Amino acid sequence: MESASAGTGPHVLRRINVATVLDALRAGGPQRVADLVTATGLSRPAVTRAIETLRAEGWAEDADQGEEPGAGREARIGRPAAVIRFRSGAGHVLGADVGPHKILAMVADLDGKVIAEQRHDTHRLHGGEDVLRALLGITTDVLAEAGVPADRVLSAAIGSPGLVDPTTGAVTLAPSIPGWASLPVAAELRSLLAGPIAVHNDVNLAVLAERWRGTATATEDLVFVQWGARVGAGIMIDGRLLQGANAAAGEIGFLDLAEHPGSDGVTRDTMGPFEHQVGASAIIELALAEAEGQGDTRLTEVMLRARPHDDAAALFDAASAGSALAESIIDQIAARFARGLAAACLLLDPELIVIGGGVSRAGERLLAVVERHLGRRTLVRPRLALSSLGDTAVALGGVRSALDDVERRYLSPAALGAPR
Amino acid sequence: MESASAGTGPHVLRRINVATVLDALRAGGPQRVADLVTATGLSRPAVTRAIETLRAEGWAEDADQGEEPGAGREARIGRPAAVIRFRSGAGHVLGADVGPHKILAMVADLDGKVIAEQRHDTHRLHGGEDVLRALLGITTDVLAEAGVPADRVLSAAIGSPGLVDPTTGAVTLAPSIPGWASLPVAAELRSLLAGPIAVHNDVNLAVLAERWRGTATATEDLVFVQWGARVGAGIMIDGRLLQGANAAAGEIGFLDLAEHPGSDGVTRDTMGPFEHQVGASAIIELALAEAEGQGDTRLTEVMLRARPHDDAAALFDAASAGSALAESIIDQIAARFARGLAAACLLLDPELIVIGGGVSRAGERLLAVVERHLGRRTLVRPRLALSSLGDTAVALGGVRSALDDVERRYLSPAALGAPR
Repeated sequence: MESASAGTGPHVLRRINVATVLDALRAGGPQRVADLVTATGLSRPAVTRAIETLRAEGWAEDADQGEEPGAGREARIGRPAAVIRFRSGAGHVLGADVGPHKILAMVADLDGKVIAEQRHDTHRLHGGEDVLRALLGITTDVLAEAGVPADRVLSAAIGSPGLVDPTTGAVTLAPSIPGWASLPVAAELRSLLAGPIAVHNDVNLAVLAERWRGTATATEDLVFVQWGARVGAGIMIDGRLLQGANAAAGEIGFLDLAEHPGSDGVTRDTMGPFEHQVGASAIIELALAEAEGQGDTRLTEVMLRARPHDDAAALFDAASAGSALAESIIDQIAARFARGLAAACLLLDPELIVIGGGVSRAGERLLAVVERHLGRRTLVRPRLALSSLGDTAVALGGVRSALDDVERRYLSPAALGAPR
Repeated sequence: MESASAGTGPHVLRRINVATVLDALRAGGPQRVADLVTATGLSRPAVTRAIETLRAEGWAEDADQGEEPGAGREARIGRPAAVIRFRSGAGHVLGADVGPHKILAMVADLDGKVIAEQRHDTHRLHGGEDVLRALLGITTDVLAEAGVPADRVLSAAIGSPGLVDPTTGAVTLAPSIPGWASLPVAAELRSLLAGPIAVHNDVNLAVLAERWRGTATATEDLVFVQWGARVGAGIMIDGRLLQGANAAAGEIGFLDLAEHPGSDGVTRDTMGPFEHQVGASAIIELALAEAEGQGDTRLTEVMLRARPHDDAAALFDAASAGSALAESIIDQIAARFARGLAAACLLLDPELIVIGGGVSRAGERLLAVVERHLGRRTLVRPRLALSSLGDTAVALGGVRSALDDVERRYLSPAALGAPR
């Protein structure tokens, strides 16, 4: 038989078979050898040999009797055939969200099941050094809670605000946490964790989470817009994150759609023009100005109470409670927001736009107003939806990203190795 | 030996070998069997058999003596070994650009060598029906000039302005050619050509051309901006065109960055807001208004002469000739244009932006002003460059697109078949 390429031989084929069986185990759950023969199209001896290898390497194990497919449903004659399963505890991953408001860290097994999570309020911390210290503490705590030794963390992914170089993990710009951009985050974590540690832009991780377990499981073309104090977007095209040539794609918060542009331009050390227009503080300031201007003391009071917490949701509550002024302010904000969203729609034509972040907690009511304004500014309309993951999206996206890394590193035919 | 997957067998492997040899022939030019053995890693009998197949199917042929690699450089003993080459004339492709100003059609061989082209002015035509008739005439003419029978056109790609559904080839929106959007362009061409006929958005084809033979041969992440009477963008990410969920990506011309927005919004039947701001007519109207306002009769005259031809370049000529007013108008226009470009940069972070279209003929001078304004509106700066293909980009992109189609259809291991 002629060989298809120079690089194929019995050894390579055997590794491919092992990876094929592992894939089938992960996709199909606990199975018997006969099931794996059917699922893979490989011969019985090939499957048996692959299982031996996977067992020896710690990737597969015997399933409990209860997990046997069809167990208890039929009477069996003789000794039942062994049931094998993927060993989801062969290693673990860590996903974490580090932001100006909180740190959230999660530990998950290789099936993506989150087995422990820890949350820490970062409002009161003073700058990047404190935040990094808190991250290291939480990492230790969440691993202890999960009962996972640090050397069993096969990969970790941290979400950070700002611009992050995904190849080096260096945060190059993060105005929302003073002093954070220059810190050796990955290097410090490396003193705790054995596996590779990646730092990503937080919104990019949120996109992965929405696609994996959120509102976007049915599409591979979406834009996730984080709408809170800051405004940022993560873009997925054909199932892949758009990073950009300088890892700076999705910076929708720096769009300049102001009515009177030309004066200042974009500076790297502050919020972007679009954030100044529609971010949580902008919403509160606009509401305050209008309420005071119109002598609406009730709304003024509500917004004064909301101001210290950047709580734009208070405005939406006021609208729900019947304030016509609140309603009209929401309309203004939604119109502004739709202009920025329209830029993303006209350039990218995504199938779905998922809106998350603090402001999105205002819910379907807000979505409807945004949708109405967006319709007047685009040629074709994407579907709009609210994030279903709340403020867990970034950490969960970290878990997904770390799992992807584990798959590339250990679970592909070319790489299969490691655990025990 | 264990088989890697259920679908492999001697027949499949033989097809893979044939495709591998064909690849090597196309990549390496005319070669001897021994060269192909080295290039492919296949055995000599396997290569010989593959060549027999390729010859029989019309994909390969004997090369002229002069094409023998190293011919004449060394004395040979005995009969020289046969030199084989890819038969670039095994079929041909057609690429065409249909626009409000011209139709340009090209015929190329399978090496991408353009062997005939025809151009037709469409300024005076009255609407879509006339344009379609002209396209059919030019198609017949250019094939005759090339000496290629219609049934040897393996694939054709037509660039059209507006929104085009790339799967059906239906033009759904094309305000610049009245009546064009509803016409069965592909169906009419099918009466002339035997191979598949695709209709694409013209700017998307221009991106392919820039990547293939233009300014962007060194990158796979670029935005091409067509800056003429209309303004549109084509986006390439990781070497692939971004089409969008509704084939409506890159519609930068409909960005609404006007100083006083909110009044009208986007309508599908006219130019977009950004086109109204920076398109060729906008440039001329702004120059006229300023020149008249300042009593600059010389510039007024120049722009009045330029108006009927949408010739924005006249303004740049005036600036070159020393008009400070022209210079300041260019600065205003460049500032507006940079705002739209900034939206693309902030969202996509491309490595390179190529600017083509009529206005881009103003050259490096314009580029420098745009670059200065862009720097104030973005976080990271892409490289800016002018198109080197002029108004041939769309037709050439059609050739590239049709060649890609031929590769998918005939030149891949899965598909290899057809010609003779």
